[in-house]
Amino acid sequence: MIRAGIIGATGYAGGELVRLLMGHKDTEIVWYGSRSYVNEQYASIYQNMFQIVDAKCLDDNMEELASCADVIFTATPQGLCASLLNEEILSRAKVIDLSADFRLKDVKIYEEWYKIQHKAPQYIREAVYGLCEINREKIKNARLVANPGCYPTCSTLSIYPLVKERLIDPATIIIDAKSGTSGAGRGAKTDNLYCEVNENIKAYGVAGHRHTPEIEEQLGYAAGEKVTLNFTPHLVPMNRGILVTAYASLKKEVSYEEVKAVYDQYYEQERFVRVLPKDVCPQTKWVEGSNYVDVNFKIDPRTNRVIMMGAMDNLVKGAAGQAVQNMNLMFGRDESEGLEFVPLFP
Amino acid sequence: MIRAGIIGATGYAGGELVRLLMGHKDTEIVWYGSRSYVNEQYASIYQNMFQIVDAKCLDDNMEELASCADVIFTATPQGLCASLLNEEILSRAKVIDLSADFRLKDVKIYEEWYKIQHKAPQYIREAVYGLCEINREKIKNARLVANPGCYPTCSTLSIYPLVKERLIDPATIIIDAKSGTSGAGRGAKTDNLYCEVNENIKAYGVAGHRHTPEIEEQLGYAAGEKVTLNFTPHLVPMNRGILVTAYASLKKEVSYEEVKAVYDQYYEQERFVRVLPKDVCPQTKWVEGSNYVDVNFKIDPRTNRVIMMGAMDNLVKGAAGQAVQNMNLMFGRDESEGLEFVPLFP
Amino acid sequence: MIRAGIIGATGYAGGELVRLLMGHKDTEIVWYGSRSYVNEQYASIYQNMFQIVDAKCLDDNMEELASCADVIFTATPQGLCASLLNEEILSRAKVIDLSADFRLKDVKIYEEWYKIQHKAPQYIREAVYGLCEINREKIKNARLVANPGCYPTCSTLSIYPLVKERLIDPATIIIDAKSGTSGAGRGAKTDNLYCEVNENIKAYGVAGHRHTPEIEEQLGYAAGEKVTLNFTPHLVPMNRGILVTAYASLKKEVSYEEVKAVYDQYYEQERFVRVLPKDVCPQTKWVEGSNYVDVNFKIDPRTNRVIMMGAMDNLVKGAAGQAVQNMNLMFGRDESEGLEFVPLFP
Amino acid sequence: MIRAGIIGATGYAGGELVRLLMGHKDTEIVWYGSRSYVNEQYASIYQNMFQIVDAKCLDDNMEELASCADVIFTATPQGLCASLLNEEILSRAKVIDLSADFRLKDVKIYEEWYKIQHKAPQYIREAVYGLCEINREKIKNARLVANPGCYPTCSTLSIYPLVKERLIDPATIIIDAKSGTSGAGRGAKTDNLYCEVNENIKAYGVAGHRHTPEIEEQLGYAAGEKVTLNFTPHLVPMNRGILVTAYASLKKEVSYEEVKAVYDQYYEQERFVRVLPKDVCPQTKWVEGSNYVDVNFKIDPRTNRVIMMGAMDNLVKGAAGQAVQNMNLMFGRDESEGLEFVPLFP
Repeated sequence: MIRAGIIGATGYAGGELVRLLMGHKDTEIVWYGSRSYVNEQYASIYQNMFQIVDAKCLDDNMEELASCADVIFTATPQGLCASLLNEEILSRAKVIDLSADFRLKDVKIYEEWYKIQHKAPQYIREAVYGLCEINREKIKNARLVANPGCYPTCSTLSIYPLVKERLIDPATIIIDAKSGTSGAGRGAKTDNLYCEVNENIKAYGVAGHRHTPEIEEQLGYAAGEKVTLNFTPHLVPMNRGILVTAYASLKKEVSYEEVKAVYDQYYEQERFVRVLPKDVCPQTKWVEGSNYVDVNFKIDPRTNRVIMMGAMDNLVKGAAGQAVQNMNLMFGRDESEGLEFVPLFP
Repeated sequence: MIRAGIIGATGYAGGELVRLLMGHKDTEIVWYGSRSYVNEQYASIYQNMFQIVDAKCLDDNMEELASCADVIFTATPQGLCASLLNEEILSRAKVIDLSADFRLKDVKIYEEWYKIQHKAPQYIREAVYGLCEINREKIKNARLVANPGCYPTCSTLSIYPLVKERLIDPATIIIDAKSGTSGAGRGAKTDNLYCEVNENIKAYGVAGHRHTPEIEEQLGYAAGEKVTLNFTPHLVPMNRGILVTAYASLKKEVSYEEVKAVYDQYYEQERFVRVLPKDVCPQTKWVEGSNYVDVNFKIDPRTNRVIMMGAMDNLVKGAAGQAVQNMNLMFGRDESEGLEFVPLFP
Repeated sequence: MIRAGIIGATGYAGGELVRLLMGHKDTEIVWYGSRSYVNEQYASIYQNMFQIVDAKCLDDNMEELASCADVIFTATPQGLCASLLNEEILSRAKVIDLSADFRLKDVKIYEEWYKIQHKAPQYIREAVYGLCEINREKIKNARLVANPGCYPTCSTLSIYPLVKERLIDPATIIIDAKSGTSGAGRGAKTDNLYCEVNENIKAYGVAGHRHTPEIEEQLGYAAGEKVTLNFTPHLVPMNRGILVTAYASLKKEVSYEEVKAVYDQYYEQERFVRVLPKDVCPQTKWVEGSNYVDVNFKIDPRTNRVIMMGAMDNLVKGAAGQAVQNMNLMFGRDESEGLEFVPLFP
Repeated sequence: MIRAGIIGATGYAGGELVRLLMGHKDTEIVWYGSRSYVNEQYASIYQNMFQIVDAKCLDDNMEELASCADVIFTATPQGLCASLLNEEILSRAKVIDLSADFRLKDVKIYEEWYKIQHKAPQYIREAVYGLCEINREKIKNARLVANPGCYPTCSTLSIYPLVKERLIDPATIIIDAKSGTSGAGRGAKTDNLYCEVNENIKAYGVAGHRHTPEIEEQLGYAAGEKVTLNFTPHLVPMNRGILVTAYASLKKEVSYEEVKAVYDQYYEQERFVRVLPKDVCPQTKWVEGSNYVDVNFKIDPRTNRVIMMGAMDNLVKGAAGQAVQNMNLMFGRDESEGLEFVPLFP
C-alpha cells in the first residue's frame, strides 16, 4: 500500500487527486493538506466526498508529512514546493510537484517568467519532467518529479512526433489553446465568477503566458535546437478540457499516410494517447474525466502547413491523472492503475 | 461472466450503460443494438469509446439476442420492449427494461398517460419495479425488471420514508423537479438544440407529465392508500442531473432530529443513498457521474410543511446505474459492482 | 433632462441601470458611484461601455449627489441606503432604492429577516413599494420608492390576480423559484465561481429566504388577510432570468376561460406583462434583456390546484428596468421610455 | 418608411433581423418569409415577439415580395438567393443577401468551395461586398449587396489595416476563430444538440471551411496580391459571439504605438469598430447584442509576430446588424439607425 499525502488538497487539482486515488487499489491517502481549511472535514469542502472520505484537513507541514507518507503530491501555487523542499524530505518520501517549480531546467528562465526567486535551485537538475510518454524510464527512478503543466502536456504530445521526426519547421510553430475554467483554480476572483465566464470567450496572457518556455524547452529537446514559438491560451465557458490547435510549416511534401505513420509509431503502444481516425477532430467532451489525450492532424496543401490538434481533460491528464501515472511508474505499479476511466459523455 | 445485450445502445442511456459495463469486472457486452446505426462502428458514434469498444452496431433483434445473452437491457422508446417481448425470450434471458412499459401495474393508466396500446399486458404482473432500495428482495428473483423512470427514482427516494412513517399528508405532496437536458434524449429536435436550451429554464408537461402516475403508484404503496399529487418537471441548461424539491404538510409537530432519524432508519445501510448533514442542500454537481442519490429536508415551522430535496445523476441512478444495480441483484453479484464511481467535481 | 445618480454603479444591477439609461432619451447620468473603484474609468470596469461612457467612478456620497441630481438610484447592499438617507437629501432629489431597506412596512420583520437594525425607520411609512402594475398612482407622487426584489416581482405578478379575485386559498401557496446567477451579485465568492455553478442546480435559503416576507406582505394586501407561504429559490447555471412556478388550491371549480379572463383583466392594458396563449409555458430566454414578465397558468383538475408560472429578466424587470419604469412614473414620462427592448433570442 | 421583406425570417439570422428592425424608426417589415412555417403566427415560432409582431409567415415568394417591398433580405441557405434573383426583382427592390451567393467574385472558387452550381453568375460583378467600413461608398449605390460572412467580417476587420499598410507578410497569416453555436443555424441536427455542444470545444472544417476564400479575397484586395492563409473555426459552448485570434509575421520592427496608430487611422471614425486600450483583450461578452467589433493586437518581439484579435456578436455585426447597416447606407439613412444597442452584460 502506497501511503500518499497531498499538499493543497482542496484546490481543483487536489480534489481530482483525491477522486483518482479513491479508485486506486494500492494507495491510501494519509494527509489531506489544506492551509485554508485546517481542522475542517474534507467532505464538508468537497461534498461529493461525503461518506467516501472521513478525514479532516491538516496543515501543509511537509516535514511531518514526509515521516508518514511514501509519496507527497504538492498541488500548490508556484514557489511553495520549492520553499518547503529539503534533503530530509526527499530522503524519506518521493515528491510529485504539480506546480511549475521544477519544470524548467534554466532557473533564470523560471525567475524571469514567474517573477519569483527560486528557493531550491539545487534540486532542479535532479527533478525529472514527468511527461510519462516521453520520459518514462527516467521517471521510474526519480525521487522528485515535476508534473507537467496542463497546456504543455497537451501541446507537447500533439506536436512532439512531428518535431522529432523533422517533418515541421520548429520556428513556425503557433499554438492556439483553449481551456475550461477549472484551470483557473478555485480562488475567489471576480474574473472567474460564473457570470463573467459564461457566454464568453477571450484570449489571455497573450505573448506572455508562463507555459510558453515549458513547451519551448520540451520541443527543443525533440528538435535538438532552441525553439521559440507563439502560445496563446483562451478561457472557454466549460468546466474541464483543453483543446490545442497548433500550426506549423511542413519541411517537405508528405502524405496523410506518412504523417499518420509517425504518430502511430510514437503512440500506438501508449495507453493514454489515442490517434484518431482520419478527419475526426479531437473534442474535449470525448475525453472528459479520463486520462486520455486524443490527437489528430490535417495537412493543408494550399499553405503547406499541418494543423495538429489535441484534446484532454486538464484536471486528469493535465494534472492529477498524470501525477498518478507518474506515481505508478515511480512505485513500479501498472502505469494505468487507478486511471482506467471511460470518458463521461455527455 | 454475465453476457449482456443492449437494445438502444446509441441513446444517452444506452451509451451510459456501455460506460458502466466497461468497468464491471464480471460483465461482457455481446450486443450493441441500434436500429439507426446498424453496421457502423459503435466507437464512431460515441467517440469516447475509441480504442475501448471495438464492435459494430447490430439490429434490435431481441430473439437472436436472447440466444446469446444472459441479460437484455432495453433502452428504447416506450412501447418497443412490450412489442418485442415473449415467453421464449424471457425463458432464455433476464430482461431489464429502461422504458416505461412495465412500470405501471394498471394497464389502463399506462394507456391513458402514454397514449399507446400495451402489447404485452400479460407480463405486467410479473414485472418487478426495480427501485432497489425498496424492492431489493423481489428484484433478486425477477425475470423481468421495470427500471424506474428518472424523476420517479429521485422523487420516490426523497419522499418515501416520510409517507411510509405517516409523517406527511400524501394529499398535500407537490413535487417540483428540475432536470438536465440528457433526459430529453439524443433525438434531433429543435427544442433540444444548444441555443434553445442554453441560458433558459422552463417548465414542461405541466399537470400532465407521464412520470406522475408512476410516482403516485409507488408512494401509494407506502401510504397504503391512493395518492394524487402535483409533479412539475423543468428543463435546466446542464447535461446531467435531477433535482427534486418536494413539499408536503406535516401531520404532527416533529423535530429535526425525529425526521432525520426516519431518513437514517431507511437509508443508513444503503450504499447509494446519502442523507446529508443538517442544512446542507443537495446539489446535482456533487453526484455527477455516480450512482448516489443525495437527500435532505427542511422543516418550516411557519407553514407546518417539510421541504424534501433529492439530487442524482439522471443517467446513472436515474437510468443506467440503477439498471446495473438491478442486474447485480438479479445475478447475485455485489450490488455495487461497477458502480463505485466517486462523483466528478467540478 | 432628468439628472440621475447611481450609488453602486459597478454591481450587476448598477451596470444594467447604466445600460438602460444610455438608451433613455431624457436622462443623463451625472454620478457613477462605486466605493470600490473610486477614480477609475467606469468603462475599464465594464468594458462593454468603452466609447459609450466616458466618466470616472465617484464615491458613494449621497449628500453631494443630491445637490446635482434629480433622482438617486441606490443599487447597494441592504442597510446602506437607510444609513445614508436624510430629509435634506429627500428634499432635493427623488430616491429609488433597489435594496430591501424600504420594502417591508413592519420594521420588526425587516430586522428579524435581515438581521440588521434599520437606520431610518421614519421613512418606511412614506416609501412607496414600486411594483408599477399595482401601485402606479402612488408611485407618481412618491419621493422615495422601494424598488421590489427580483423574486417578489415575478412571484407577486404571477399570483396576485388569483389571490385578489379570491380564486385561490392563500394558505396553500407554494412558490418554487429558479434564478440565474447574476442575482447573486458581482462579489468574489467561491460559491459563485464558474465551476461551482456550471452544470449544477441547488436550492438555497430553504424556508428562510429574505424575499419571503416581502411576497407575503404584497399578497396579503391582495388577500385582505395575513398570508404565510413557502418560497424556495434555486440557483440555475445561466446569467439572467427568473422563473417562478407557484402552486395553490382553487377555492372553487373554474374553467381555463374564467381564469384567463382574470389575468387579462389585470394585465391586458399592461405594457410589460404578457399573458401567454393557452398551454405555452413561460421561458426565461424569451424575455432576456427586456422589461417583460411573461405569465401563464395551468389548472390541474386531478388535484384541484392551479400552477401559476412567470418568467422575467432578473436584472431588468427584477431590478434596473423596474427602477427606470418607476423613474418614468415619478417624473411624468412615458412609462416605457428607455425600456422598449425586444427580448434577445437566442 | 422603408418597407422590408425577409426571406428566411425564422432562422436565427432572420429572427435577429426582426429584432433589430423592430427598433428601427424608419422601417416596416411587410413580409415574414418562412417556407417551413407558412401561415403560422411568427410570434408562435419566436415567442419573444409575442405582442410585438402580429403577422403570419409567408412563403419565400421573392417576385411577389419585390412588388411590395423596398428592400429584400435573404437569410437563407447558400444557393437559394441566386436561384430566385432576376432583373425584375432587382429593378423593383434592393436586395441584401446574407448568404454566400454573391460574396466571391470568382464563380469557379464559389462552385469549388460550396459544391453547387451558381444560378445567377451574371449578378456577381454588380454585387457589392457589404463590409461597410471598407466599401461604404460603393454600398450606397448598390442594388445588390452581398452581406459578408460572420467569420470573414471579424477576421477581415481585425487584420485589414496591417495588411493594407504592409506591416505584415500576408503569406504568414493564420486565423484561429471561435464561434458561438447560433452560427450553426436552427436546423435540428444531432451535432447541435445541447448535450453535444455543452462542456465541449472542437475545431471543424479544418483546412476546408468555406469562409476561407472569402477572407483571402478581401485581404487580397488590401495586399494587392493573392493571399493564401489558414483559417480554423471552432465551436464554443455559448449562444453568440465570434472571437478571432490571428497571427502574422511582422515585415519590420515596429512599436506598439506605431501599430496602434495604424488601427486608429482606419477605425477612429468608425462607429462600430472599437480599438481597445493597450493590453485589453477583446471578449465576446463585451459586445453581445450590439453591432460592435472590438479589436486589439499584441506584438511578440520574441517571435517577431503580431497577434491580432477581434470579437463581435455573430448574429449582429456578423449577420443581421451588418445587413441593417448596409440598408441604412443604401437608403441614405444614418448608418447607425436601429443599431445603437449597448452590449448586454452579463
